[in-house]
Amino acid sequence: MTMMTAEQYEESLRHLNLKIYMFGRRVESAVDDPIIRPSMKAVAETYALAHRPEYEDIMTATSHISGKKINRFTHIHQSIDDLVKKSKMGRLLGRSTGCCFQRCVGMDALNALSIVTFNIDKKYGTDYYKRFQAYLEHAQEKDWTIDGAMTDPKGDRRLPPHKQPDPDHFLRVVEERKDGIVVRGAKAHQTGAVNSHEVIVMPTIAMREEDRDYAVSFALPSDAEGILYIIGRQSCDTRKLEKGLMDRGNLLFGGHEALVVFDNVFVPWDRVFMYKEFEFAGQLVEIFASYHRQSYACKVGVGDVLIGAAQTIAEYNGADKASHIRDKIIEMNHLNETLYCGCIACASEGHREPSGTYAVNTLLANVHKQNVTRFPYELSRLAQDIAGGLMVTLPSEEDLRSPETAQWIEKYYKADPEVPTEHRMHVLRLIENLTLGTAAVGYLTESMHGAGSPQAQRIMIARSLNMQEKQRAAKKLCGIE
Amino acid sequence: MTMMTAEQYEESLRHLNLKIYMFGRRVESAVDDPIIRPSMKAVAETYALAHRPEYEDIMTATSHISGKKINRFTHIHQSIDDLVKKSKMGRLLGRSTGCCFQRCVGMDALNALSIVTFNIDKKYGTDYYKRFQAYLEHAQEKDWTIDGAMTDPKGDRRLPPHKQPDPDHFLRVVEERKDGIVVRGAKAHQTGAVNSHEVIVMPTIAMREEDRDYAVSFALPSDAEGILYIIGRQSCDTRKLEKGLMDRGNLLFGGHEALVVFDNVFVPWDRVFMYKEFEFAGQLVEIFASYHRQSYACKVGVGDVLIGAAQTIAEYNGADKASHIRDKIIEMNHLNETLYCGCIACASEGHREPSGTYAVNTLLANVHKQNVTRFPYELSRLAQDIAGGLMVTLPSEEDLRSPETAQWIEKYYKADPEVPTEHRMHVLRLIENLTLGTAAVGYLTESMHGAGSPQAQRIMIARSLNMQEKQRAAKKLCGIE
Amino acid sequence: MTMMTAEQYEESLRHLNLKIYMFGRRVESAVDDPIIRPSMKAVAETYALAHRPEYEDIMTATSHISGKKINRFTHIHQSIDDLVKKSKMGRLLGRSTGCCFQRCVGMDALNALSIVTFNIDKKYGTDYYKRFQAYLEHAQEKDWTIDGAMTDPKGDRRLPPHKQPDPDHFLRVVEERKDGIVVRGAKAHQTGAVNSHEVIVMPTIAMREEDRDYAVSFALPSDAEGILYIIGRQSCDTRKLEKGLMDRGNLLFGGHEALVVFDNVFVPWDRVFMYKEFEFAGQLVEIFASYHRQSYACKVGVGDVLIGAAQTIAEYNGADKASHIRDKIIEMNHLNETLYCGCIACASEGHREPSGTYAVNTLLANVHKQNVTRFPYELSRLAQDIAGGLMVTLPSEEDLRSPETAQWIEKYYKADPEVPTEHRMHVLRLIENLTLGTAAVGYLTESMHGAGSPQAQRIMIARSLNMQEKQRAAKKLCGIE
Amino acid sequence: MTMMTAEQYEESLRHLNLKIYMFGRRVESAVDDPIIRPSMKAVAETYALAHRPEYEDIMTATSHISGKKINRFTHIHQSIDDLVKKSKMGRLLGRSTGCCFQRCVGMDALNALSIVTFNIDKKYGTDYYKRFQAYLEHAQEKDWTIDGAMTDPKGDRRLPPHKQPDPDHFLRVVEERKDGIVVRGAKAHQTGAVNSHEVIVMPTIAMREEDRDYAVSFALPSDAEGILYIIGRQSCDTRKLEKGLMDRGNLLFGGHEALVVFDNVFVPWDRVFMYKEFEFAGQLVEIFASYHRQSYACKVGVGDVLIGAAQTIAEYNGADKASHIRDKIIEMNHLNETLYCGCIACASEGHREPSGTYAVNTLLANVHKQNVTRFPYELSRLAQDIAGGLMVTLPSEEDLRSPETAQWIEKYYKADPEVPTEHRMHVLRLIENLTLGTAAVGYLTESMHGAGSPQAQRIMIARSLNMQEKQRAAKKLCGIE
Repeated sequence: MTMMTAEQYEESLRHLNLKIYMFGRRVESAVDDPIIRPSMKAVAETYALAHRPEYEDIMTATSHISGKKINRFTHIHQSIDDLVKKSKMGRLLGRSTGCCFQRCVGMDALNALSIVTFNIDKKYGTDYYKRFQAYLEHAQEKDWTIDGAMTDPKGDRRLPPHKQPDPDHFLRVVEERKDGIVVRGAKAHQTGAVNSHEVIVMPTIAMREEDRDYAVSFALPSDAEGILYIIGRQSCDTRKLEKGLMDRGNLLFGGHEALVVFDNVFVPWDRVFMYKEFEFAGQLVEIFASYHRQSYACKVGVGDVLIGAAQTIAEYNGADKASHIRDKIIEMNHLNETLYCGCIACASEGHREPSGTYAVNTLLANVHKQNVTRFPYELSRLAQDIAGGLMVTLPSEEDLRSPETAQWIEKYYKADPEVPTEHRMHVLRLIENLTLGTAAVGYLTESMHGAGSPQAQRIMIARSLNMQEKQRAAKKLCGIE
Repeated sequence: MTMMTAEQYEESLRHLNLKIYMFGRRVESAVDDPIIRPSMKAVAETYALAHRPEYEDIMTATSHISGKKINRFTHIHQSIDDLVKKSKMGRLLGRSTGCCFQRCVGMDALNALSIVTFNIDKKYGTDYYKRFQAYLEHAQEKDWTIDGAMTDPKGDRRLPPHKQPDPDHFLRVVEERKDGIVVRGAKAHQTGAVNSHEVIVMPTIAMREEDRDYAVSFALPSDAEGILYIIGRQSCDTRKLEKGLMDRGNLLFGGHEALVVFDNVFVPWDRVFMYKEFEFAGQLVEIFASYHRQSYACKVGVGDVLIGAAQTIAEYNGADKASHIRDKIIEMNHLNETLYCGCIACASEGHREPSGTYAVNTLLANVHKQNVTRFPYELSRLAQDIAGGLMVTLPSEEDLRSPETAQWIEKYYKADPEVPTEHRMHVLRLIENLTLGTAAVGYLTESMHGAGSPQAQRIMIARSLNMQEKQRAAKKLCGIE
Repeated sequence: MTMMTAEQYEESLRHLNLKIYMFGRRVESAVDDPIIRPSMKAVAETYALAHRPEYEDIMTATSHISGKKINRFTHIHQSIDDLVKKSKMGRLLGRSTGCCFQRCVGMDALNALSIVTFNIDKKYGTDYYKRFQAYLEHAQEKDWTIDGAMTDPKGDRRLPPHKQPDPDHFLRVVEERKDGIVVRGAKAHQTGAVNSHEVIVMPTIAMREEDRDYAVSFALPSDAEGILYIIGRQSCDTRKLEKGLMDRGNLLFGGHEALVVFDNVFVPWDRVFMYKEFEFAGQLVEIFASYHRQSYACKVGVGDVLIGAAQTIAEYNGADKASHIRDKIIEMNHLNETLYCGCIACASEGHREPSGTYAVNTLLANVHKQNVTRFPYELSRLAQDIAGGLMVTLPSEEDLRSPETAQWIEKYYKADPEVPTEHRMHVLRLIENLTLGTAAVGYLTESMHGAGSPQAQRIMIARSLNMQEKQRAAKKLCGIE
Repeated sequence: MTMMTAEQYEESLRHLNLKIYMFGRRVESAVDDPIIRPSMKAVAETYALAHRPEYEDIMTATSHISGKKINRFTHIHQSIDDLVKKSKMGRLLGRSTGCCFQRCVGMDALNALSIVTFNIDKKYGTDYYKRFQAYLEHAQEKDWTIDGAMTDPKGDRRLPPHKQPDPDHFLRVVEERKDGIVVRGAKAHQTGAVNSHEVIVMPTIAMREEDRDYAVSFALPSDAEGILYIIGRQSCDTRKLEKGLMDRGNLLFGGHEALVVFDNVFVPWDRVFMYKEFEFAGQLVEIFASYHRQSYACKVGVGDVLIGAAQTIAEYNGADKASHIRDKIIEMNHLNETLYCGCIACASEGHREPSGTYAVNTLLANVHKQNVTRFPYELSRLAQDIAGGLMVTLPSEEDLRSPETAQWIEKYYKADPEVPTEHRMHVLRLIENLTLGTAAVGYLTESMHGAGSPQAQRIMIARSLNMQEKQRAAKKLCGIE
């Protein structure tokens, strides 16, 4: 089996023994937990769509190792075309789920490691790349969902890892054994962590020699001894505990983030991909970050959903012909397609790394992500403008169902006489979900901070530029020298 | 008693017999309901601050009827200075509550009626102004909170009231009796409705003769026979049902909106302020709208809270010295003070109406509100940028309290070693509350649609301009005629 | 005579003996020079409008010294109302001239000195305020136009005055005599310098003891021995040398800036208003800057002209009914009126200084100016959008007049058949003038850098804020302490 | 000869006998005219760079007709790679010339005709494609610069061509002869018209049957009998007549636009590519427009020059290390690279048309151009912010050279002691040139209106979207149907 179905994926998760906490209590079965389950269903879509013939070209690839057809999420990009298809896959899944489908971090971690392990070996004659290839083959064969874990808690932002008052504020090696290493620390904001079979840990910043104990990368099963998960809460999370489905907005899917604690966890050598080669920490961060900034292609797909919802509510409100509404819909699309241009261009301008893996254009990937920290907010503002105030004053689904209030809800929230009141409520709840609710977590705040905060992109933009070329051009034209 | 205390206000509400529904069930006591109570507490601040000597100048005024000191919320503006102080009162209360304190709609309705009833009388020799003065005197004496109810459900947006498939989609007179009238319909998005002693109903759009049965304005006790309320739900509303307080973000205050249904309600003549004088419907709407657009001064105060929270989390994160953070804080303030300029300028440029009431400058009030539909969204975006991703991945307060998880939360969410982890969590929850949670309903979506949607302001801006003067100036300078 | 007419003003300039250079040559008569004359005519409007009864309230005031009616440009603000009228005067003149009318710097310098000389005396027992009052009385009596000269060339921006490689890069005292002082240095970007009777020199930055020789303020006749002027060139300046008038865009008015060199100039003691009291340099800069940032009220008036021109070309193009054009006109107005709110609010929120002079609100004046560094650019962009590409591809007036080309111009540039082609050309040239030509210098780049560059305002905004109050509000609401 | 050198190109123009007017007078030799010559030099760069080995890949292609190496400007795109290289060629030349190099319109016209002539033939069995191929072969062989002429004067914007009061306001067939047709009308805003060997005329809007006489496309030598040119003037155009070079800003290159009048011009049949097939007018417009919107890749190159100039002046001012300056430089680059993403993505997402020609993605090409109507304005604003006010108050080069003023200019405009004053002046003049002067015509206003005004792109964006797909996705997620 190289490509699981959605059902097989769900089943496979049941075999894991994850230690998960939420609201201060242990979660027995993440798969069945009403708050977590929609996020699992979003990941499951990455399996389901790969079996749909119309998406085969986008959702699957041919493994350069085994030659078998595999889910693109486990693929190492072999060409520009692969990079472009990755962006299209992100948009497709964003549109299909209306939320974060979580599986891109693992793909990005695999691709980044396929470059950096090769480079380390070249310098030090180590065998990380071989280890990694073995791991990768397995990952493709098993069709794993992998959590690519980078962000440390970071403690006091003004200090490097080795100077932190609490040395665990960056994940580190605490013991070296014959058969492997023991690590301690945590990774924060881990998207989709409890829906993953595996976790790949990477350092979070460039490091100097003093930080060498922090320069470590490795892979583990997600239920390895000593790993525990604490689920972060989201705006409107507990609506998933309510009886009706309507007030969730998105009835089918969601996302989640978790704090992942590594409490003295053992890693065998064959799963260690970087060990104290501190000068490669920065490279791994940068390459992973560029891939992952490209991955925000998904927000274009979520934008599609928001635009679709805005157009629908405009029609239901009977306002879709108003020139200002039409113009706002165009503006939403314009911004969304501008984002699309970013994720396509950074792929189209990609290049081959020494290991054979194709990497995206660093400058353009950062430019893309920088726009992602801006445009979804404006899209949300426009969607709220189009939706009307009812989006935030609408009574609950229970009011619609209650014999005491149903008549008033039905009567007074009817707009276009051809459209059932319930439909109007449904789409308003979806816009609420995307702009204020659980999905806003992914569409807005995660767009801001995921794959690095905006300032991180600005620093990379500054470093990726060829300013000399621009200054030469300017000076020549105005007659200097 | 002309000025109630906060305690007297709360007590006075207990004497009302409101018919309120929420989640499909009747609410027994709004004052004690955990979801509604914070909104009552926000209104109560308008009473509490009026007794604080340092705010006397802003929060109180001298009645032009009784000569007594009254709460400014029941005052008819007698000067430019009154108008300016109204804006300052809005900012003060916004900063004090961090949410919508709901009481300005009643103040704006009173002031608008003080102008329009006078004007109707002048044309028709009616005695609305006398009726209104009597009502006003009582309102000042009782220190009422009044719901100024304007927005009808509106049904099919493409049709005027009298052509609606459901004739009740705009509130209307269904029967004229000797002693009064009977009305039917509803008012949507009614801010603070269930915290009010009274409701003043006004038409929602300019009308033509065919709509005369809809051109009606009147006042009623909020618990009059036939009135019922259905509470709208808000993002994160049910966090108020949870045990801990932290996850609410704002531990003290909130807002609410309701659908108010008038199911064949009787209004005695002495409380009717407009009755089929359809050509004054537009005037009442415009004057009320201008006052109410000024009232969005409150969002400057909420902006103060958001800025204060952003600065605080920057310090707690140890990032407040970074130049990009400082610059973002400046930008937040710049935008917030630009809003402040709007609400001050429209007051400062006000004028006296024939009835003696001072009105704000229509053009500038609309310009102010238009900016309110934009800047809070950018302020929110910047606050989320400064806050960091933890704002949406933070575990629940219960995780902080649970013996199984507390150690990890304490350890890994510590940033500046001098700042308790709990403080950092508190302020992150406040930013979540303001940008995604219950307060975002008021700070964002209500800023968009309250007192009229952005397009309504643009239409008024276009109508308030003197384009001829501008064209004359241009033509003269370039030599045309 | 306390109020000159425009004609008397022009005549008075002929009596001055200024040493002016332009294009490397001495200008014999600035008044008659075709490039400079339109700027003189713009200043003359400040005299002309003061005699127009309909503008009396705005353009004139009653001297608090002499009790006589004076031109408001020589007035010391005695009330909030004076401050508000100053803003309205700026808008009126901006709309009347479509350019920089240059006279506000002198007014702002007088008002700033009326505060600071008083404050210095209070600390040191000096008699600057008395000297200044005597000077002021004369200035009001003579109805002078005064150049308020602040900006030094500044040399190496990283060094303070006393460390500059060239010590003259900040203007300084080079000799102290019995009867006065000798100064050397220059002031750059001096708006309207050669149209002024007098020049008031002020330091350009806050200073420390080492810079005390640079902490000097004084007044001189503009033709004092040793002062010379080099006129800066502007985009499209030489169109004023062409035969026809049309291609100037603005046929009547313009502006100019000059470098003013002080080549060992003697200043008698009675005209020295600050002499080495270095700790007051910063205060003088800040107060002058706040007044002068308010003065950017004028750009609202220039914005009126641009909006009037945009509306006119839309009509001439036959496009004024298109919804997107109407919306862009509304947006232009919205932005322009937002600017207006800033200059009204900083005046309305002004206060009385110890000397009796009323000062604007520092925070809001800086917020206002900051918006002036942004919105005129967007207004220009929108005006170019509305104008159409013809604005930059239109042939010259000579092509319209030439027998060889007139027929083609007339035929093919006709749009609305009711509008003469020539009118369409006139208004296009005006928009070109305001967005790319001589007036763009004032409307755009001067809006950016005049009265301090945007970063200077941001620093002042940061310093004028009460962040503690905001943080207290936030902490209280979320439960910290 | 299939690829001319720059020198051969200049020489070839001397052989043309164009009828050109400027300032109301006939221009004898465009090549030698000081105002026009820099624009010819910019076109010449498209020839010069094609001979530079380092640019061979970008600047040249292999003809699919002759198999010879040709200048890419005469190439028909045979692949996605060709489309991408076209965008890169635009950026390269924009950076090399700092202005509009004019030659892309002809390339875009050729490619559009290669698609549409094929499609017409397919429907009507005509032989336009064959005619066109013959013409193309010749164009490639001769290495022509071609003016692609689309924009008619349009007269009354509210009327279609056949209803215009002046029937010539759209170019039309006035006579059909055995050997060809006679046309009359004009094309406005023709970029680089007088530097072209040929002109290809196309209709400017979609047409209906009544407009069939206007549905015509053909090619002519630029000096055909009856064609005349009237040069449009540009901001600061006459600086090119001044003695010194500095004040031009860009010492080497420029652009121009002209009104091209067709005064009863004869076209032989073999050069007619569309003749009354009105239903293909819209297709030709759309395809040409999409190609030409892609062509605004050039503005990324001009943006490079502006960024280079901004960085340089920041260094010369000694301000390049200030954090706000660095941030503004990053923002300029971010916006410029966002534009780059647009022109790359619309190419990368291109497709093959039935004729074999590759076309860009319509939606993304329009999105790209829409951003071009916005970002260069913000880049200009930022550049002016960085440059400082001196950009518009700097005296003339003559002041620098004059013995009377040179010492003051040298002394007081010196900033960084290591940088010659003259260098600082040079780069300030370049920024003036790009943001207010002759180049601003191309960088700003032409960015706004060239290849269609912003509203034209919005209409195309609206038409190119798949809204149903978005609505389906939204409805499915929120449970509708």
